[in-house]
Amino acid sequence: MIIVLKRGTSRETIDKFSTALKKNYDVTVNEWQGVNETVLGLIGDTVSIDIDYINAQDIVYSVKRVQEPYKKANRKFHPEDTVITLSNGAKIGDGSLSILAGPCSVESQQQVTEIAKAVKDFGATVLRGGAFKPRTSPYAFQGLKAEGLEYLKRAREETGLPIVTEIMSETDIDLFSDVDIIQVGARNMQNFSLLKRLGKLDKPILLKRGLSATIEEWLMSAEYIMAEGNQQVILCERGIRTYEKFTRNTLDLSAIPVIKKLSHLPIIIDPSHATGQSWLVEPMAMAAVAAGADGLIIEVHNDPPHALCDGAQSLTPEEFHRVVDKVRKIKSVI
Amino acid sequence: MIIVLKRGTSRETIDKFSTALKKNYDVTVNEWQGVNETVLGLIGDTVSIDIDYINAQDIVYSVKRVQEPYKKANRKFHPEDTVITLSNGAKIGDGSLSILAGPCSVESQQQVTEIAKAVKDFGATVLRGGAFKPRTSPYAFQGLKAEGLEYLKRAREETGLPIVTEIMSETDIDLFSDVDIIQVGARNMQNFSLLKRLGKLDKPILLKRGLSATIEEWLMSAEYIMAEGNQQVILCERGIRTYEKFTRNTLDLSAIPVIKKLSHLPIIIDPSHATGQSWLVEPMAMAAVAAGADGLIIEVHNDPPHALCDGAQSLTPEEFHRVVDKVRKIKSVI
Amino acid sequence: MIIVLKRGTSRETIDKFSTALKKNYDVTVNEWQGVNETVLGLIGDTVSIDIDYINAQDIVYSVKRVQEPYKKANRKFHPEDTVITLSNGAKIGDGSLSILAGPCSVESQQQVTEIAKAVKDFGATVLRGGAFKPRTSPYAFQGLKAEGLEYLKRAREETGLPIVTEIMSETDIDLFSDVDIIQVGARNMQNFSLLKRLGKLDKPILLKRGLSATIEEWLMSAEYIMAEGNQQVILCERGIRTYEKFTRNTLDLSAIPVIKKLSHLPIIIDPSHATGQSWLVEPMAMAAVAAGADGLIIEVHNDPPHALCDGAQSLTPEEFHRVVDKVRKIKSVI
Amino acid sequence: MIIVLKRGTSRETIDKFSTALKKNYDVTVNEWQGVNETVLGLIGDTVSIDIDYINAQDIVYSVKRVQEPYKKANRKFHPEDTVITLSNGAKIGDGSLSILAGPCSVESQQQVTEIAKAVKDFGATVLRGGAFKPRTSPYAFQGLKAEGLEYLKRAREETGLPIVTEIMSETDIDLFSDVDIIQVGARNMQNFSLLKRLGKLDKPILLKRGLSATIEEWLMSAEYIMAEGNQQVILCERGIRTYEKFTRNTLDLSAIPVIKKLSHLPIIIDPSHATGQSWLVEPMAMAAVAAGADGLIIEVHNDPPHALCDGAQSLTPEEFHRVVDKVRKIKSVI
Repeated sequence: MIIVLKRGTSRETIDKFSTALKKNYDVTVNEWQGVNETVLGLIGDTVSIDIDYINAQDIVYSVKRVQEPYKKANRKFHPEDTVITLSNGAKIGDGSLSILAGPCSVESQQQVTEIAKAVKDFGATVLRGGAFKPRTSPYAFQGLKAEGLEYLKRAREETGLPIVTEIMSETDIDLFSDVDIIQVGARNMQNFSLLKRLGKLDKPILLKRGLSATIEEWLMSAEYIMAEGNQQVILCERGIRTYEKFTRNTLDLSAIPVIKKLSHLPIIIDPSHATGQSWLVEPMAMAAVAAGADGLIIEVHNDPPHALCDGAQSLTPEEFHRVVDKVRKIKSVI
Repeated sequence: MIIVLKRGTSRETIDKFSTALKKNYDVTVNEWQGVNETVLGLIGDTVSIDIDYINAQDIVYSVKRVQEPYKKANRKFHPEDTVITLSNGAKIGDGSLSILAGPCSVESQQQVTEIAKAVKDFGATVLRGGAFKPRTSPYAFQGLKAEGLEYLKRAREETGLPIVTEIMSETDIDLFSDVDIIQVGARNMQNFSLLKRLGKLDKPILLKRGLSATIEEWLMSAEYIMAEGNQQVILCERGIRTYEKFTRNTLDLSAIPVIKKLSHLPIIIDPSHATGQSWLVEPMAMAAVAAGADGLIIEVHNDPPHALCDGAQSLTPEEFHRVVDKVRKIKSVI
Repeated sequence: MIIVLKRGTSRETIDKFSTALKKNYDVTVNEWQGVNETVLGLIGDTVSIDIDYINAQDIVYSVKRVQEPYKKANRKFHPEDTVITLSNGAKIGDGSLSILAGPCSVESQQQVTEIAKAVKDFGATVLRGGAFKPRTSPYAFQGLKAEGLEYLKRAREETGLPIVTEIMSETDIDLFSDVDIIQVGARNMQNFSLLKRLGKLDKPILLKRGLSATIEEWLMSAEYIMAEGNQQVILCERGIRTYEKFTRNTLDLSAIPVIKKLSHLPIIIDPSHATGQSWLVEPMAMAAVAAGADGLIIEVHNDPPHALCDGAQSLTPEEFHRVVDKVRKIKSVI
Repeated sequence: MIIVLKRGTSRETIDKFSTALKKNYDVTVNEWQGVNETVLGLIGDTVSIDIDYINAQDIVYSVKRVQEPYKKANRKFHPEDTVITLSNGAKIGDGSLSILAGPCSVESQQQVTEIAKAVKDFGATVLRGGAFKPRTSPYAFQGLKAEGLEYLKRAREETGLPIVTEIMSETDIDLFSDVDIIQVGARNMQNFSLLKRLGKLDKPILLKRGLSATIEEWLMSAEYIMAEGNQQVILCERGIRTYEKFTRNTLDLSAIPVIKKLSHLPIIIDPSHATGQSWLVEPMAMAAVAAGADGLIIEVHNDPPHALCDGAQSLTPEEFHRVVDKVRKIKSVI
């Protein structure tokens, strides 16, 4: 960690600060004199140092980390890729392309089972479906909750597909004991209390990137889970918030190679939520695979009578089929 | 709600869609023909309609709300200002200027009591202090938790100042039964499960704006609390995330008049977190009051032996004194 | 164009406003009454209406366009793809993959000729190189200017590759008469005076997206050129400014399918500037091609003695070779 | 400047890099060894070093400036405030509050003269008005141009108010020889060619902040003007682009104290463009003055017959009167 001090900081104050740093943290402090500035270099275990706290000190002009603030999620300390093995033996992060597909919301047993069968036929490896739904409005449908989880499990029985579904509250954690992958939504990416709880489980966690989370903050949230013992974290990029409003969010595909460099954790892409428009799912899914994604999570719906009109943001099973074919072709040449 | 349909949508599809809308929602549907586009106007209770869902329909070009999606937080349906009365009779939102002040983290009984006395002397009306601390890193100090809450309560006894402190988990809710104002941090603004729980209490909630939350999303989170019965919500702007990195966040002071227009809820400003630098607290506090804020929440620290050096992001009690004097002067002329 | 009026607007004011709209623009005005709001629908040529102006009217709650504000760049009025033919007969936008490559800055005749030969051998179709360099600092190297243009032309003679290079001022326009494609940089995307001048030429213009330009604003800048007569516009996405700082900018690949839908103009991607790091060029180039880009513009440098160290943001010719091979493979399967 | 090298960089490469730095720039290079990383500290004139270029080197992990990259705009090298004296003796930046007011666009002689008289009566110190109008659409009204400048000059004759108006092209510069303050709009903030030309004049330049310009980039654009000799630069914050869409832009008032700290140049605020809504002008103007702004630039319109309806984004002269009274009251207490 490099700390640039403000001009005119007195010798006495520098010494006092330097002593405090050594006392409070397990570091040695090097000093280096510029033309006008004094620079301190901290060597040792700087991960536990709060950069905002240092930055907030009166005499500090600026601070810069040299080491990343995450350890367990850091590829430097864990060079080989993490591979997640699901209940049915399927793997995520082993070089294969995982396809997680299913309806946005679980609506009925029939709906989810039918979609599960369709997406399995067309190449899905995991069934997704929302039972607890985070909604901006308290007046919007909040999901079938426990009942929805049961429908998903029955669909799993009938198809053999492992299931992934979102948790919204620590208090629901027991309901998720039989779920294959627990998803943490973008809005809860920094619900640290929830992350700590999930860190005590022995179960894969799909951690979505927060709407305006930096890549470092996202990895720090993975670190919260991993620091508690659970190393099975799958990262999921789902679009970030920018000024552009044509697409719902801006899908940050550079996150794929960046995560691959910084971390050993698998990364999958959600083109459905990122763009909010079904016709954008195919090109963005293809781009994601070309950029090296370990998988895709795609919304598929096959129940027109229950939808308001014949088409929706979700792909139909046929459209999903076409996307899977195309991304597999891309995968085969990279 | 106005729905613009895509060009070339067939008569049959339009009719089918229109029928479905009337069946699913309590609305009548008007149709209006442009040169190339068909526009539908929905009249009735459109608050419960999920705009993303409509937007996701194949035949929809775009959707626009005419009515705001919040009711209880909406000034249109509640023209008079909401005034929050605290345990000691102090009020927030009654036209006075509330000053919430105290340390970022509760560190010890002595620390919090001393600061409480100092800020009370200099004009604070509420004592703030963090017992549960949301930290980006799992390796950083997470607060004194229950013990910290006790210290705060004892400081309240000694000074008479009501206390405000942050909750991070639904499972801790019983610990907060004797707290005057419960704070929801920016990272939990869309922790809907927590919001619903707080909505069942009869206690003021300080709801911080999420790092990249729109004003509408922020009001929708207030609506989550209010829809459950608790109408005592205080909004707090604390800076939003932008591309600018000189300040930690960008303090959006236009949120003050905007909230005053859209909602009847009180709004206070946190210049300490927004800017991350103590020398910016004074000018931003003054600007906030000039723009019409109902209050300020300011970090004050007086325990140099426990800080790393003599100055910090927090103001010293003396600096706090000066800020209070200046903002009171501004308040007196507006 | 749909205009929602504020609640409580009087009959008289509505009529006055409606009459003014009809008088000022070539439109008819439909009126539609909601529960509390009045909505006006403008039918006719609404392209010339300034939406900000309407929005600024006291009685207006909000405005929404139904038609895009661009005509010549709009696929609705020009369904077939625009294909740009260069001096040597090469085409951009015809379904092939164009590769524009070369050094960031032209440094010497030898440098640019050597790189030109290398990139041609490895599959480049156009030579890029900066003679006029936009630099944040007035103290940084500003390019070889006219001399640099001469070096580029000589490299064109020796290799047959058409050249693309950036213009920074209207007053330099005569110097560019013999350039094959004139580039407008991100910082000048809304230099309307320059755009109008370029619109009078009969020469392809490569229009980079501004750092925080919406897709609509970008197309409006293309419209500025096209409205003056020059229809040969190539769009280039080069990363947008977001809160994320790991990459220099955030490459918005969803712009590719979005532009393809909204416009008939070709779109190419600049992964070098977008990411600012050479190791990100390959995956982002692959993703761009998978998403349907018409071409790539890539920095290549082969002159280590003049660079500060052996590697740089630019790819070496060998790295460039590998990228071209990989993107051609992707191109072959989509 | 501090350069952190990547792990595993060889001794030989470090030495080569260090030698190149010393050869290319006027610096000495200090080396400092961390646990895993090597850090170089450059001492000397680092202003001319392009940080992106250093960052782009293969062996570089990250770079950090210790010194600001601007000199002439830097308060460190010019501690006393810059005061701009206008043709009529009025001053900007001398501790007084400058009020620049007038119509968005100059529409006719009568209009601009009437408004000029009104705003002068109510306390304006400078007349603003657009003759050349930057418009997103080529089909929108582009201003009266040279004719508009003449109207402004005649209004100056009649009122004695100095005039400020926007330049959009270098080729128009002769038309502006008799203008008191030349404005550079947000879209041209990095039109370096224009900035250099203005730097050769002996005339105040009002430099608006670009839509997504950092404070440092803004100061660097001021530096472009100042490096050519013209030291009379007035900075103007007019809102930055963020994800929030309720206001047209987000007014960044923290820019006021930040600019005051970093630079000696005066800073004024444009609440009209920043918010896009007339009812937000008053609270934001008050906040700006409370935060320490040297002045305000406000749109005022008094010509209802030529406006589409009775109210507009611009304030009426009466509303302007009220704003001036309120901001003067704030000014008197700070």
